[in-house]
Parts: sequence; structure tokens; C-alpha cells
Amino acid sequence: MPLTNKQLIYTRKPTPSINPSVTSNGDGTFELRTSTFPDPAVDAIPENKILVRMLYLSLDPAMRQWLTAKRSYIAPVKLGEIMRGQGIVEIIGLGKGIDTNKFKIGQYARAATGWQEYALLPTDRNAIEPLGPLQTISTASQASTGPKTNQPQIRATDFLSTLGTTGLTAYFGFLHVGKFDASRDKTVVISGAAGATGMVVGQIARLKGAKRVIGLAGTRVKCEFLVNELGFDKAINYKDTDWKKQLLDATPEYIDVYFDNVGGEILDACLLRANQNARFVMCGAISQYNTGSDFGGAGKSGGSGGVRGLQNYMMIISQRVTLQGFIVFDYVKEYPRALKDLSAWLEQGKIKRREHVIKGGLEAAPAGLVGLFAGENIGKTMVEVASVSGSGSSSSSSHSFGTKAPVAKL
Amino acid sequence: MPLTNKQLIYTRKPTPSINPSVTSNGDGTFELRTSTFPDPAVDAIPENKILVRMLYLSLDPAMRQWLTAKRSYIAPVKLGEIMRGQGIVEIIGLGKGIDTNKFKIGQYARAATGWQEYALLPTDRNAIEPLGPLQTISTASQASTGPKTNQPQIRATDFLSTLGTTGLTAYFGFLHVGKFDASRDKTVVISGAAGATGMVVGQIARLKGAKRVIGLAGTRVKCEFLVNELGFDKAINYKDTDWKKQLLDATPEYIDVYFDNVGGEILDACLLRANQNARFVMCGAISQYNTGSDFGGAGKSGGSGGVRGLQNYMMIISQRVTLQGFIVFDYVKEYPRALKDLSAWLEQGKIKRREHVIKGGLEAAPAGLVGLFAGENIGKTMVEVASVSGSGSSSSSSHSFGTKAPVAKL
Repeated sequence: MPLTNKQLIYTRKPTPSINPSVTSNGDGTFELRTSTFPDPAVDAIPENKILVRMLYLSLDPAMRQWLTAKRSYIAPVKLGEIMRGQGIVEIIGLGKGIDTNKFKIGQYARAATGWQEYALLPTDRNAIEPLGPLQTISTASQASTGPKTNQPQIRATDFLSTLGTTGLTAYFGFLHVGKFDASRDKTVVISGAAGATGMVVGQIARLKGAKRVIGLAGTRVKCEFLVNELGFDKAINYKDTDWKKQLLDATPEYIDVYFDNVGGEILDACLLRANQNARFVMCGAISQYNTGSDFGGAGKSGGSGGVRGLQNYMMIISQRVTLQGFIVFDYVKEYPRALKDLSAWLEQGKIKRREHVIKGGLEAAPAGLVGLFAGENIGKTMVEVASVSGSGSSSSSSHSFGTKAPVAKL
Repeated sequence: MPLTNKQLIYTRKPTPSINPSVTSNGDGTFELRTSTFPDPAVDAIPENKILVRMLYLSLDPAMRQWLTAKRSYIAPVKLGEIMRGQGIVEIIGLGKGIDTNKFKIGQYARAATGWQEYALLPTDRNAIEPLGPLQTISTASQASTGPKTNQPQIRATDFLSTLGTTGLTAYFGFLHVGKFDASRDKTVVISGAAGATGMVVGQIARLKGAKRVIGLAGTRVKCEFLVNELGFDKAINYKDTDWKKQLLDATPEYIDVYFDNVGGEILDACLLRANQNARFVMCGAISQYNTGSDFGGAGKSGGSGGVRGLQNYMMIISQRVTLQGFIVFDYVKEYPRALKDLSAWLEQGKIKRREHVIKGGLEAAPAGLVGLFAGENIGKTMVEVASVSGSGSSSSSSHSFGTKAPVAKL
């Protein structure tokens, strides 16, 4: 009997927020459909293809942009397509011609499957990157309750966060775009600091010797996490009525590097506090993604409707500020060195992980994405599409890795 | 009898526009006062001081910022002080101890006198820089009527424009901040293109081999000047109702370097047309200077009132744009090389000059500054404080320079 495969199809444009309903007759942004896949227990896998089962699906703020931005770093997802996404998968079937030295049944991998439970993938690196024999990933599924920040050994889900896109974004954004240099730069400010990227930026700032690491986040719990768990010097809840005053008081020597994940009013307030020659690393603008702006439209020459206009950009001139946007994929050739650093820091406990794992299977992904914009997460958000223990896979080898096995280089 | 010296004193903060009235009982931003100076024909000049007479006073948009910006690249002018400014002066008296090999009676110099007819200056380079024996400057006083763009020889007033702050700003902004490279960059867009800085940027872009040089300006006459006199490929009148469409059509390969003198809506429109890895050179925001914003206030943490908010800044991320502010004074050590290039280009006719000379003496300066913001000028704005022929100086040597005399290095 073939496997039944659930998929989430991008069906309706956000208006401008994502509607998380997945019923087939509703008005959700995504619609749940099913397809079938060969059952590796009985059916032949197509030649040169790898059948994988999704375990943990990554959710990222950028996904909102993939739905509407017309001219961006990546083509938008088209209506009717499976929603784009990647996750940690388990290899459950191999077609003829696959190099079994590289891909093994039961092995974990990071794969660009889209939002579905199973996928048949080609072997190229953009589609699937096998992980080495890793420690069990079962702890990740409990990580949503209580801090899990003191587990230095590398785990599979780390390849979605600290050793994945968000960690690399933090690394290149802070060190290459932000050009942080402790001999010159004193004060680092990070917005969205309790998010997957922000929390790594702050920790790199600390270990690189910043005098003041200041995070902005949207709840008291997040602020306590930043200071108590991650060692930020100060965390400011931007929902406090006096947050601008707090920012002023926290930056007596102004801001040398600002890492922006949110845009809007916080970016504006930080511009007012920019030090001379400050670097503003423009990584994200999560506060603005749901404003109905279709910025970058090829046929569009006018301003954009709902985006909050930046007021203090004249500080860019008077303080010689550099605002620089970047996309982590531009640094792909330098990933190996970054991953070497990040792996070492993670193993040494210098960077702590934090995962926000959403239960409920694939169907929970749209609501999880909405939750990202509502600030529900601390750390890296992922959906547990299948728990390892509940595997329906024909492979039973997936739990047999030794806990001290060496970590593969990606 | 001592010389009577007119001065313009900064008396009232702009509200937010400058009020050009100079009557002593009015409500102007500046007030006309008189002081006295030693008459070099009869009185001794104080030791180690140089007495100068202002001929051409430079007017610059940045002056508006000097009146209100609280945290800027330069301290604001205080109420009650002589308005800050520089111009081309004639040396009319030398105190004991002055090196007469360096400073001569009748010599022209560029000097930071403030807005007054005479000044007693120390000899340091920040106060006065003697020019070499130069061609007569008398043509400058007629330059306000008709194009005077085909006079390649160096003139004294060039040291306020092409060989002064605006030319240096164009040079370092375009080449160092904008990092223009013809092997990579095709399209250059300049706002405020018919202004003193913008017109030099466009001409450098042309001589450095840009494929498309596009200027934005506010009148048809300015646009014709840019295309017909300076060789811009395209000029767009931003007062046309379809200017955004014109900008779209003029940038089929997007914008690689945008040189911003105006901020506001034009900056926003150019962000929408930014090419990947575009550099946005943030030089000025003349459209925003009179909006009542006191950005940069040390005790101020909120947004600024009247500035038009930038809408499309999210393009900075998706297109990896770098917006970089700069102040030309940061490049002072590299001035000599830049001046060598600029002098050569001017003498070779590769850069054409254009001056907007305001008559009426010192009293005309406030209205002239207001006129800058109204876009009345093409090219470099200066006030003819005294015409050379109407000199009351005791020196008669100021007109005797040979027309082929070598130009001094600054």
C-alpha cells in the first residue's frame, strides 16, 4: 500500500496576514491535500531518487515574504505549489543508482522538501544534505517546555538553527556585514533578540568581547531569558511604554552595531542612537511583513501602502551610518569556516540553543508561522511533523546512532 | 577711520523654514549688525592676524542643519553667533609676524569668516587657505546669466565649487562611498542633479564610463542643462506627474549607484529600483531639512515629526543594498589626490562649472539660502558680497595676476 502524504499547498494570497486555516473548503492561505508515495517496504523507489520522511519542519519569518515579494532574493512561491520549506528528514528509501556510502536508510538529513510529510528528492546538495551519525534527536521534541540551553552536544535539529540558516545569518551578518571589532565597537543592539537569529547574534557579540550587548524583545519572559540564560547585559521589552527611554539609558556611548530583525519603530529609535560610523545590519523587518506592502513590484513605481515610514534616516548622513542589507546565501562559499566556528562554540557551550517545537503535525505549520509574527516563540521555531518514536518508517535503524559518534561536516 | 563691517547674526530658530528678513526689529532668522575693523590704510593690524574682505560667500544646504541639528557632524551655530560660512576673500591687511611669502596683500584666499564683510583671521589652515596667483575672478559675477560652462581655466570661485567642498563631496561620495566601477556598474542616478554637488557627480560618472547617467531635478530648464550642457543621458523633472514612470523606464537594468541629495519620496522611489548590491550614497536630504525635525536630539528618543517616512527600506534587505552616509571632511587626508583629479578634469573641460551668483551684498544671503531650498539655483550658489571692481581695499594689486599664471596647489 502506498504511503499517504499530506501536503500544504499555497492557495490564497495573504490579506495581508496569513490565514492559518487548512480546511479544504475554508479561506486559508494554505490548503491541505494528500498524495501518495511508494511504500519503501514493498515498492521500488524511482531510480536516483531518495525517499525521505519529514521529522522537523523549519519555520522562518522570511516565508511570509516568499508569498508576495515580487522582486526579492528568491522567486516567490506560486499559487498552487507546495509551500517551500526545509527540515530535518529521515531517509527511508533509496532508488537504484544512489551512492549508499553517502546516503543510508535511517540516516538524518537536512532537506528542501517543501511543506509535506514525504518527499522524493534528487541527490544534489540543494535538495538534501546528509548529516553524519548524530546523537538522538528525541530531545528536540521536548524542547518546547522549559529552557534546553545547556546541551552542548550537536543534535540534528541544530542544523536548522545554530548550524543552519539562522546561525549562519547571525554569523555573517554580525561579523561580515556588521564588521564587529571589539577594539573599536562597544555597544551592540539586537532587535528580535529572542528569535532564532537574534539570540545567536547576541551570544557571538558576547564571546567576541562586546562591552554592552542589548536585546529588544516583546515579553518579560524573553527578556529574562536573554539576560539570565544567554548573558545579555540588558534586555528591553519594547512593549513597555518607556522602552525608548530604556534604550537611551542603555546606550550611553551610542550604538556601534545594530542588528535589525524587525524594522519599523525600533529601527527608527536605534537610528537616533547611532554612533558615528555605526553599522546597521539589515537582516529582517518582521514588524512590517504583514502590512500589505508588495514592495519591489516590477511594474510598481510608487510607495508602499502600509509600511511604517522610517523617520530618522537623516541620521545616516550626520553620523556616517552604513545600513547594509544582506542575504546569507551570498556567503555560501564561506559556510565551512563559519560552521567550524559555530560548531565549536555550540559544543563548548559558548552558544546555547533554544528551540520552540510546535506539535500537531504538518497541519500545525500555518498557525506556527502566524505565531512567529505574534512573537510566540523563543529561539528556533520548528514543527514536529513526525516524532521519531512514532515513526511509520520501515527502517528501524534510525535510533541506533551512538551518542558519542563524531559529527559529520556539512 | 575704521572699516564698517556688516555681519549676519543667527538670532531666531527657523520655524521650521528660514525667515530671510534681516531688519533689526523683524522676526528674521538672522539679524544684520555692524562692527568695525581696523582700516589697513591707516591702522595697525593685530599681530599674527590677517584682515580679509569677503568677495563671494558660499551658500550650502547643510547650513540649514547647522541651525538645528543637535547631534551632527559639526556643532550647531549658537543663537547670537555670527552665522558660519566660508567664501573667497581678498587679503587686505597683514599683522606683524605674518609670513609674507605665504600671505600677500591683494591675494585671494578661501576663508572661514562667517557671514560678514570683513574678518580678522589667524593663519591656520582651517581659517584661511591662500590661493595661488589666479585668473581674474570677475567673470564669476556675471555667471548668473546664461551658461558659463565652457571656461576651462581655473578661477578663484572654483575653490568654492568644483575644487571646494561640493566637488570633493561629489568625488568621495561617488567614487569612495558609491564605489563606482564601470566594469560592474551600469546605471547611476543622482537627485538634486543640477545642484553644485549633483552636477559634478554626474560628470564624474560620465567620464568614468557609466552606461546611463540619470539626473533628477525640479525644472525643465535644469533638465535641459543636464542633458544638453553636461551630457547626462536622461534628466527627469520630479515635478512631472509621471516622474516615477519615467524613472522606471530610464532604469531597465535597475540602479547600481544612487547619489542622494534630497531624501524623501525620490529616495524611496529609487529604493524600489535598486539593483542587487546597489550602493546608495547618502549625501543630503534637502527635501527634509525644513520639516521641523530636530533629529538627533540627545535627550530625544522618539520619532521626528514632519519628516516623510521612508517606505521602501525593506528593499535594502532583498536587494542587499548598502545605504551609507558620509561627511566629506572625513576624507581630508585624501583631498590632494582628489583635487589633482578635479583640477585636471576642470582644465581639460571634462567637468564644466556652473555658478549661481546672487547680487545684493551680504544682506542677500538669507534669501539666497531660502532660494536653495526652493530650487532657484543651477550649480553652485554664492553671494557676491563685494564685486572686485567696487573694491574699497587699499590694495590695487588684486587684479594684476597674469591669466596664464600657474594654479597653486591647495
